[in-house]
Amino acid sequence: MMAHLSPFAPTTFPELPPIDGMRFATAEAGIKYKNRTDVLFAVFDPGTTVAGVFTRSKCPSAPVEWCREQLIAGGGRARALLVNSGNANAFTGLKGRETVRLSAEAAAKAAGCAPSEVFLASTGVIGEPLDPQKFAAVLGDTAARVAPGPWLDAARAIMTTDTFPKVATRTVKIEGVPVTINGMAKGAGMIAPDMATMLSFIATDAPIAAPVLQGLISKGADKSFNCVTIDSDTSTSDTLILFATGKAAIAPIESPTDRRLGAFRRALESLLIDLAHQVGKDGEGLTKFVSITVEGATSPRSAKKIALSIANSPLVKTAIAGEDANWGRVVMAVGKAGEPAERDRLAIWFGDVRVAVAGARDPDYSEAAASAAMKQAEIAVKVDLGLGRGKATVWTCDLTKEYVAINGDYRS
Amino acid sequence: MMAHLSPFAPTTFPELPPIDGMRFATAEAGIKYKNRTDVLFAVFDPGTTVAGVFTRSKCPSAPVEWCREQLIAGGGRARALLVNSGNANAFTGLKGRETVRLSAEAAAKAAGCAPSEVFLASTGVIGEPLDPQKFAAVLGDTAARVAPGPWLDAARAIMTTDTFPKVATRTVKIEGVPVTINGMAKGAGMIAPDMATMLSFIATDAPIAAPVLQGLISKGADKSFNCVTIDSDTSTSDTLILFATGKAAIAPIESPTDRRLGAFRRALESLLIDLAHQVGKDGEGLTKFVSITVEGATSPRSAKKIALSIANSPLVKTAIAGEDANWGRVVMAVGKAGEPAERDRLAIWFGDVRVAVAGARDPDYSEAAASAAMKQAEIAVKVDLGLGRGKATVWTCDLTKEYVAINGDYRS
Repeated sequence: MMAHLSPFAPTTFPELPPIDGMRFATAEAGIKYKNRTDVLFAVFDPGTTVAGVFTRSKCPSAPVEWCREQLIAGGGRARALLVNSGNANAFTGLKGRETVRLSAEAAAKAAGCAPSEVFLASTGVIGEPLDPQKFAAVLGDTAARVAPGPWLDAARAIMTTDTFPKVATRTVKIEGVPVTINGMAKGAGMIAPDMATMLSFIATDAPIAAPVLQGLISKGADKSFNCVTIDSDTSTSDTLILFATGKAAIAPIESPTDRRLGAFRRALESLLIDLAHQVGKDGEGLTKFVSITVEGATSPRSAKKIALSIANSPLVKTAIAGEDANWGRVVMAVGKAGEPAERDRLAIWFGDVRVAVAGARDPDYSEAAASAAMKQAEIAVKVDLGLGRGKATVWTCDLTKEYVAINGDYRS
Repeated sequence: MMAHLSPFAPTTFPELPPIDGMRFATAEAGIKYKNRTDVLFAVFDPGTTVAGVFTRSKCPSAPVEWCREQLIAGGGRARALLVNSGNANAFTGLKGRETVRLSAEAAAKAAGCAPSEVFLASTGVIGEPLDPQKFAAVLGDTAARVAPGPWLDAARAIMTTDTFPKVATRTVKIEGVPVTINGMAKGAGMIAPDMATMLSFIATDAPIAAPVLQGLISKGADKSFNCVTIDSDTSTSDTLILFATGKAAIAPIESPTDRRLGAFRRALESLLIDLAHQVGKDGEGLTKFVSITVEGATSPRSAKKIALSIANSPLVKTAIAGEDANWGRVVMAVGKAGEPAERDRLAIWFGDVRVAVAGARDPDYSEAAASAAMKQAEIAVKVDLGLGRGKATVWTCDLTKEYVAINGDYRS
């Protein structure tokens, strides 16, 4: 757990304004870690709407199942959020479900609401039973301390192998009234699309009906977290939840075609991409942050599939770790994706350096220029398939010995 | 290139008997390596039949394209095989095709046959032009030295990052006549199904018609090389070719339903699995050889997809490297495969130790026993999905810092 700080760890963090109608506090429940916070408890004023997207794993965690059920059964209303780090409560069988039920009851009591209005998320080790008493022991005191900030403390409490807390904020004007969106995320390993984050929580004071909120967060996830892959390993616990307290003094937005949504949607997507990049930039053991753009594909779907094939290739990722402009491995990863590609139309760039064109090494290729591009901390790989207009960008990081060290010794 | 010797490197190698009708020699052509052989040239007597299976990459190497064309155009006849290591002649555009044409012509001249009867394979760096003059310079002398052995020399000439040469032999009696099958393989990285080997060449003296041979090798590949994955990265150059000289004194086998084929098929598949295991046991940087068996799936196809999802998971592979019985990551990999699975029916074993049952940790689980299982050099992971009768086994290795080191510095 003594991973080196990511080279992309920010030296300063943005100041997040309060979200009217949301208060929270953190606690040290001693679930796994010592001398650090591991519980986040947030309460929302009555009238708060909620939407979420979750892992597509066939073996989801107990909290993921709980949240899905409450979203359907509860009509999109939320009054509390309870999150812990150190234990994922995943693959814990009947006990796991019982823990979820008891935790929701304890949180509901502390928040003064129904258990169905409580949302839960857990992250950490899989397969270890999670003792619900850990929550019961701290919830009374924590509920008494809730406040509108600081968000950085909340982001810290949900970290596992993350080396820095991840927060972002945006403000837009709707009808001249400033509306705020705040977000936090955690995740550094077991990161792959479907959902690409492990946990992320967003809150806004905008008054947006739950079905509209659901459309916004689903589309937003596709453009952000679902474009990040660190190690191709989809988590059992991926959770992205968006809460809207409705406190901003504007008329409620109840239709997805409401024209006032445009600015909000853009701000939300910008915030989600910001957080997704932060997750990518804290990839376990990384030294490089890499964007992979595939264009000229037969469709955007095809472009994304090829981009992910490149982003998930251990040989591409180790070459980048070694600062080696090894475009042969990019060709290999294009070829194995199973999507339409014609070798002799391929062109490949590292940064601004075109290293291959028309299915062979670029005649003007300069190893020195390519090597210089590979020495950057942020590297853009571009592939033009020359077939159509499909385009996609995904983000990933390099694969280092440090990743192996972190994950060869995680449980102990 | 100074990788440590695989812990599974054999200390002795089998003695391979000659295959009547096949002779070969190796040469130092200086394609990339110094002071080692890098060219294998084999000649076959007239009447030799041939069949092969190749990478499904959309960006195959020039020699792969050549072999496919000759198999179709040449009616399954072969007179020569020319293989080199050090350069894959992949993604080399028009120049690559020209190299293939010139190399086949030079080999045909040396063997006294038509270029269409020459089969070619190249392995090594992708994207570097391969100079056909390298072959022309050594072929005359090499052709003058061809002999029925030793196969170990041939296997050595085609190695790249392999730490040991890979050979195997089987003998079966057909109509009381002993028939021999010899094989060699190379491959240690960029290994994933579709084909899972980079290069493997098999020869037999059995008289088997080319279409029958094709059926045998296709099915055999599915049961052997296509069940090995080292790093999920499918090569541009995967090639498996089976030659039959027909010298054994038995009546020709011209139908796939010929009852004499049974023993031959079993021997061939046993040999292919032997070579596939050798490839898996030379995985770059490995310390463990791992078999993953999934049973109780809804179909064999579904079982294999889940087994490969586990085998290719970086988190599972790093846990195995760390000798950590981290079955939570196995659950994760089952869940992300997208195939039917019910968390609460899952059971998982490491070796003989059942670590999880009915969707949770086994109540009788002993960390000490599981840890002892993880300390073995060969580790069997078994998952029972409890849904149906589909079953599959695949083979892989762990993911170590050494893999990252080898692949972060391959070109330089």
